[in-house]
Amino acid sequence: MSEDFITYKPIGVIRSEHCVPEDTPIQPVYAKGCEGRAEIFSEYAEGLRNLSGFSYVYLIYHFDRAGEAKLIVKPFLQNVEKGVFATRAPNRPNAIGLSVVELLRIEGNVLYFDGADILDGTPLLDIKPYTLKFDCFETRHNGWQDEVDEETAGRLGGRGYRGGGVL
Amino acid sequence: MSEDFITYKPIGVIRSEHCVPEDTPIQPVYAKGCEGRAEIFSEYAEGLRNLSGFSYVYLIYHFDRAGEAKLIVKPFLQNVEKGVFATRAPNRPNAIGLSVVELLRIEGNVLYFDGADILDGTPLLDIKPYTLKFDCFETRHNGWQDEVDEETAGRLGGRGYRGGGVL
Repeated sequence: MSEDFITYKPIGVIRSEHCVPEDTPIQPVYAKGCEGRAEIFSEYAEGLRNLSGFSYVYLIYHFDRAGEAKLIVKPFLQNVEKGVFATRAPNRPNAIGLSVVELLRIEGNVLYFDGADILDGTPLLDIKPYTLKFDCFETRHNGWQDEVDEETAGRLGGRGYRGGGVL
Repeated sequence: MSEDFITYKPIGVIRSEHCVPEDTPIQPVYAKGCEGRAEIFSEYAEGLRNLSGFSYVYLIYHFDRAGEAKLIVKPFLQNVEKGVFATRAPNRPNAIGLSVVELLRIEGNVLYFDGADILDGTPLLDIKPYTLKFDCFETRHNGWQDEVDEETAGRLGGRGYRGGGVL
């Protein structure tokens, strides 16, 4: 199994105002008010049917400009080394990105969302509906993130984004 | 962009009691009490450091036994055709699976979790921490899923699993 490779093909592309990795918010909560678009290639557009009824969606994408994969990284929110699977850092063994974004509207094959924390031109792999029942859990423990206060998280998480820090 | 292929390599394998797709719960909430394991290949084990502090994690995996991809599907919870991106059906253009599972413990390179809704032998692509701040949203609208009552969802969602229906 470990020798098998799995191949995917982008279903679309993300459009955002973010062109510089270092200036891109690290999560949608630090990119509020920043609108992005997911342009689905026309051959997949039919699959968007019924999606507009959901308030939030998952975008699953490929970090195409992630650096070399590492197992130990320093996350943006805390300057202390962590295992990469305990972080959302892009330079992971499989450079898969996951963002929960607020769906604003869908027009034809274009999905407009709020909370753009994704670089312009990023290849989109999948879209899934986010639902209260399946995906919203009032977690008790959030690991090392519980050590990062809101003000610090807002300041570091927004990075270069003009709205950064507004939670 | 649309012609580029993206290649990933499994970082581990999922172990569960589920061997038959039709008898596998469709989401962790319908598989409560059902323990599963994610066995990380030894070369990636270091990346698990600091993960045990999180109550929930995302497992991202490859639906290796999904049928042919479709753009319109009938979801398990409602016998009405939907666009595939408005569902969590496995037979999607890129057969990527996403489950939010409760982390029980980590022993060496093995992660034990509750809510196993994944077939035994499924290739694991990524693990990410689930956090209250980034991932928990009290959604107002859950599309067509708002039309499915709890009793029906519990009954259909558990499928063949003995604990199915217990929400």
